[in-house]
Amino acid sequence: MLAARFHGRGDIRLDKIEEPPCGKGEVKMRPAYVGICGSDLHEYTTGPVLIPKNPHPITGSKYPVTMGHEFSGVVVEVGDDVEHLAAGQRVVVRPTIFDKTCPSCIKGIQHCCDNIGFVGLSGYGGGLAEYINAPAEHFYPIPDNVSLQSAALVEPLAVAWHAVSISPFKPGDNVLVVGGGPIGIGIVQVLKVQGAREIIVVEPTENRRRLSEAFGATHLLDPRNVDVPETVLRLTDDIGADVLFDTAGVEGALNGAIPACRAHGTIVNVAVWQKRPAVCVNDLMYKEVNYMGAALYDNTSFEDVIKAISYGQLNPDKMVTSKITLSEVVEKGFKSLLENRDEHCKILVV
Amino acid sequence: MLAARFHGRGDIRLDKIEEPPCGKGEVKMRPAYVGICGSDLHEYTTGPVLIPKNPHPITGSKYPVTMGHEFSGVVVEVGDDVEHLAAGQRVVVRPTIFDKTCPSCIKGIQHCCDNIGFVGLSGYGGGLAEYINAPAEHFYPIPDNVSLQSAALVEPLAVAWHAVSISPFKPGDNVLVVGGGPIGIGIVQVLKVQGAREIIVVEPTENRRRLSEAFGATHLLDPRNVDVPETVLRLTDDIGADVLFDTAGVEGALNGAIPACRAHGTIVNVAVWQKRPAVCVNDLMYKEVNYMGAALYDNTSFEDVIKAISYGQLNPDKMVTSKITLSEVVEKGFKSLLENRDEHCKILVV
Repeated sequence: MLAARFHGRGDIRLDKIEEPPCGKGEVKMRPAYVGICGSDLHEYTTGPVLIPKNPHPITGSKYPVTMGHEFSGVVVEVGDDVEHLAAGQRVVVRPTIFDKTCPSCIKGIQHCCDNIGFVGLSGYGGGLAEYINAPAEHFYPIPDNVSLQSAALVEPLAVAWHAVSISPFKPGDNVLVVGGGPIGIGIVQVLKVQGAREIIVVEPTENRRRLSEAFGATHLLDPRNVDVPETVLRLTDDIGADVLFDTAGVEGALNGAIPACRAHGTIVNVAVWQKRPAVCVNDLMYKEVNYMGAALYDNTSFEDVIKAISYGQLNPDKMVTSKITLSEVVEKGFKSLLENRDEHCKILVV
Repeated sequence: MLAARFHGRGDIRLDKIEEPPCGKGEVKMRPAYVGICGSDLHEYTTGPVLIPKNPHPITGSKYPVTMGHEFSGVVVEVGDDVEHLAAGQRVVVRPTIFDKTCPSCIKGIQHCCDNIGFVGLSGYGGGLAEYINAPAEHFYPIPDNVSLQSAALVEPLAVAWHAVSISPFKPGDNVLVVGGGPIGIGIVQVLKVQGAREIIVVEPTENRRRLSEAFGATHLLDPRNVDVPETVLRLTDDIGADVLFDTAGVEGALNGAIPACRAHGTIVNVAVWQKRPAVCVNDLMYKEVNYMGAALYDNTSFEDVIKAISYGQLNPDKMVTSKITLSEVVEKGFKSLLENRDEHCKILVV
């Protein structure tokens, strides 16, 4: 079968590899839609980062590995002992892999597992292939009214849902979202569902501002043209944002946004940083602002997003700005996203 | 009367100034003991920082200002409308000045006031003078069994008490304290009172480690000789510290300590940073660690510390490593602390 595999920085190849057998407790699936994620791009340009150079402690794999961790598909076969799934069923994959034995896992915080891995990065194959085999726990059935295309967006939306869920956000709060990429836009959608008052998005590119607005942002700020804290204060009765989500991971954007947060407010970091930011800690301190990290998602957030799509609360299809085939994944996928990142939100491989 | 006044960076002079009259709603006090604080040193070496260059919006003062904001004394005279105090009463000064009208003040977070000021830095005189006059709200009577010397330590202990109070610390938690200066040692004392399990102090100087131990630290780590995260994990059943207090404000110490914090743990910044640290935000994020700021103290924490000293729970006298007179304040106070900072914990001007 064909599989897009990571062979090293800047080197993703469409390889012909053997179809793995469907072992006990495993599910074999044919991927339908696969999103390309910021982490995938990060691996392509500066990896291996999360992709294991040495055998991953849980999967035992190291690169070359098949990529693709945001994906849906149809079950082809189930191994022995798999009872909750059957061939023909439409499913979405929860890619997070944890060992269940580290102190975080034992405390129930599996998504902070010391040995965290991902289907599509750390082994068990990936979505960018004709078939994938992985332990059954990674496959979640989707309701009939959820399309396979929408299901491919569950994973990034789960990141957004989880970030809002673990933050102190409550209905009626004023929120500032820094960055209008797929995660920022996901957070805008989740905030809309969960009853935010003002949803202010700071984003320098017009295309992403427009998309943020389409998904429910109430105010769009171009940080090159407006004073962000001054504008946020004006929009929030001089109080400042109750919660701020940083999805950009840009030092100037973070430090520039801190004064827009109210005293005892919270800044949630959802960004993966390429370089450690020199943070204005004194500004955080004098206002006793909480700076917290949100990593990935727990299983509940993943399920909540499937339900929210099924209930019609989340309609993520408009996030898809392009659809390509597996053979086009490098040229029209990775390279296109890198060269014209601002024009795209989510590219799906069909 | 004599007053030690800040005239600019490196320029503190013992000036002869007029005794201010005791106006309506004011209290006139004769200072007994006055601590020299890290912020005072900061003003001396790199100020004016908090000291106002332009008239302070609340006090109307700008430098030269009288210094000294950690102090106790005896009331000499009370102005009209002051009913809860009388001449002869022993008191401690809560130096924080707030405007009561900014959004933070209205929300009840007065210590995060947009125009926060300090007696002894921003006007209303200061402790390093023969007399001080200030609005009556700054003076707190002390119980008979609290010495004037101990009372001069209420202010720094209130910083420590408040930091612990607003953190998610609960009895039985394992705590890491980075830095064994006066605030770090204050936090050790408060943690002891409030029932911490392990209190691990990271501090490079032997003198401060010894003092930390005398106040209740259970483990002392010299970061130059041990691997801090590895040791903390070993001391906490491989889980990591539940709460970490950073009183050092040193980039390497902060980033080196982050891996010692458990997933979903909290790092409380109590340090004022001279330079923005390049923070390992990704490390915070993957473990969903909270990084929160604790600034100063609320009025309740200030009162709680007075009570805790009176109840015998806090015995801060051992923090005093030297006593000097007002005329010695520059040579044996500021300069001595700067040159031999590690030998001292708290110097009191008597």
